Amino acid sequence: MLRACYLSHTSGITMSDSEGQPTQSVRCALPSSPSAECVSLAHGEGARATRQLIARHILPNFHSRQLESLPDAAQLSIQTDRIAITTDSFVVSPLFFPGGDIGSMAVYGTVNDLAVSGAAPKWLSVALIIEEGFTFQQLDQILANMSAAAKRCDVEIVTGDTKVVPRGAMDGLFINTTGIGELRSDAPSGPSSLHPGDAIIVSGPIGSHGMAVLTAREKLALSPPPQSDSGPLHEAVAALLNSVGSGVRAIRDATRGGVSAVLHEWADAAQLTMQLSESLISVTAEVRGACELLGMDPLYIANEGTMVVAVDPTNEAEALAALKSCPQTQGAVRIGTVQPKTISPVTITRLLGVEQPVDEPTGAMLPRIC
Amino acid sequence: MLRACYLSHTSGITMSDSEGQPTQSVRCALPSSPSAECVSLAHGEGARATRQLIARHILPNFHSRQLESLPDAAQLSIQTDRIAITTDSFVVSPLFFPGGDIGSMAVYGTVNDLAVSGAAPKWLSVALIIEEGFTFQQLDQILANMSAAAKRCDVEIVTGDTKVVPRGAMDGLFINTTGIGELRSDAPSGPSSLHPGDAIIVSGPIGSHGMAVLTAREKLALSPPPQSDSGPLHEAVAALLNSVGSGVRAIRDATRGGVSAVLHEWADAAQLTMQLSESLISVTAEVRGACELLGMDPLYIANEGTMVVAVDPTNEAEALAALKSCPQTQGAVRIGTVQPKTISPVTITRLLGVEQPVDEPTGAMLPRIC
Repeated sequence: MLRACYLSHTSGITMSDSEGQPTQSVRCALPSSPSAECVSLAHGEGARATRQLIARHILPNFHSRQLESLPDAAQLSIQTDRIAITTDSFVVSPLFFPGGDIGSMAVYGTVNDLAVSGAAPKWLSVALIIEEGFTFQQLDQILANMSAAAKRCDVEIVTGDTKVVPRGAMDGLFINTTGIGELRSDAPSGPSSLHPGDAIIVSGPIGSHGMAVLTAREKLALSPPPQSDSGPLHEAVAALLNSVGSGVRAIRDATRGGVSAVLHEWADAAQLTMQLSESLISVTAEVRGACELLGMDPLYIANEGTMVVAVDPTNEAEALAALKSCPQTQGAVRIGTVQPKTISPVTITRLLGVEQPVDEPTGAMLPRIC
Repeated sequence: MLRACYLSHTSGITMSDSEGQPTQSVRCALPSSPSAECVSLAHGEGARATRQLIARHILPNFHSRQLESLPDAAQLSIQTDRIAITTDSFVVSPLFFPGGDIGSMAVYGTVNDLAVSGAAPKWLSVALIIEEGFTFQQLDQILANMSAAAKRCDVEIVTGDTKVVPRGAMDGLFINTTGIGELRSDAPSGPSSLHPGDAIIVSGPIGSHGMAVLTAREKLALSPPPQSDSGPLHEAVAALLNSVGSGVRAIRDATRGGVSAVLHEWADAAQLTMQLSESLISVTAEVRGACELLGMDPLYIANEGTMVVAVDPTNEAEALAALKSCPQTQGAVRIGTVQPKTISPVTITRLLGVEQPVDEPTGAMLPRIC
């Protein structure tokens, strides 16, 4: 039976029984010595500290007119009657890796999901879940990187949310971004429209993101380390659709599960076989070395700024020219051809000429890459 | 220097130095004995296990035509040129509490943020971050509760994302929901439009959600325990606007920071004082008892289905009648009046007649309530 309770900043609320022995305690949201350098639980609780966090760290980094009045919901004027919406949570470890960081990746990832759907990215929501004790220095760096990425993609961050959880309740920082875009009238019809003979194009060297994160997280002594391809695809998709139009059958960014996962989904949707040639697939020397060392196949490794495109074979040259005109996709190459359905949904002709199935893995080998 | 590496399902990838001593290891995404009862890292990695998780647990619970093709982005037809967007992450502990659970709350919370902005809620995205080892039984229960809540609010879950993080990288389950609604033409103009004399109405007893979660988390021996007010406000807002129209100045759901935080924001936006009477404020007997025991003021405690409304005084009776006609807000009462600015932004006349300032706390006392 509870008889007494008191509140202190060092021990929180403690309750004692009839003999005065403590029975339960409730942790206090305020640290005993509030630090100016770290996020505390109070910053997530909706009162003055939350307003200070937003005023001192979020608004100065994001510069959004919509955000400034901190409404429950942003109000947007829409110029079209068809919009696209997508959402992604980013839980990458470590938060900073060669070629990128969780903040810019959280913007590019969602922008890319809109772009490959045939939408012009316009607005983003940003929801942060922060562990108590996270430093403002890291938070500001990540928010600044998000802001720079949003500017590069010409999208506005219009609404957000911040939660703080106790030390140990999670690792560092998770970010959710939800994106809204205006659908283009020439959005690709998708993988069910694939035809035998279609060209399968990949927009650059594959496997870079997964190997960059793995190398950074496990502190593998590779020199130079693999660099993530994390970057925006909206310009390349626009260039491709402006050039080829309805000749583009399907586009997909090759994130978790890599190029293999995209092609398995397409084979399933179209009931056709995706036939690749290993000699055509581009992999950087750093990624190739790391993959050989670890016994991994770059086809299964995640990318964060590389997409797979299927086009009508008569449009292949124009499609490649459009992609090569954009910095993010200047390494675009044709890696294979859509074929009538065989026993394997995805096959690859290896360097020595042997044709093998590309199996769909049960899971990827690299958690916490995106 | 690295000399060798191997992959096993029990120990992951291990590297050894030139003497054969292990130097580094990389954890494998596949558990050594995959369990049919729990989420594993493989379920978050974008390959076959992820597809199975979605096919067996998410799609059967959510029944959405938009979700079924699993596009990168949902494509929506919009009937208006003004939309509202809002986002929230839910990190509540425990996941189930008297009167609600994280799933239904993740739907109601976002629906309510749209509703109080004057938007008719239409679509939701759902992003799950799940800890390895989370049981499918709990996941299915939470997804079913989300689905039932979405049906009750007449909103469609149109797109989503699932990430799995290693055991210990977070606690159980976090959910982000982002909502899109179509803005009503009679959306309230907001707190900057408040006038002296306006009636301040609260839609029901306050403090229930925060005390329900605290009681459940700390296993306080209260009987009966406080019940959360977690529930939808969209019908009540529609009834209010249909009845009173532009007589409604501002609406806000009183979540983190409670009624106090809403009124401090309004006082700041309007440069007026919000004057309350303690005798008018409704608090259930369970919440009152828990607050007295713990020395907490219900004005600061979070709600999840209770809103503050300011109306022109000539519309007070109609507004109260509209609110009382809806189950979620049948306990609506006027608790105070907007006054010309005094030294305190929010004041309260206590039961014995003394007028006191209601301070804005630095942080709330209850983390992980929403």
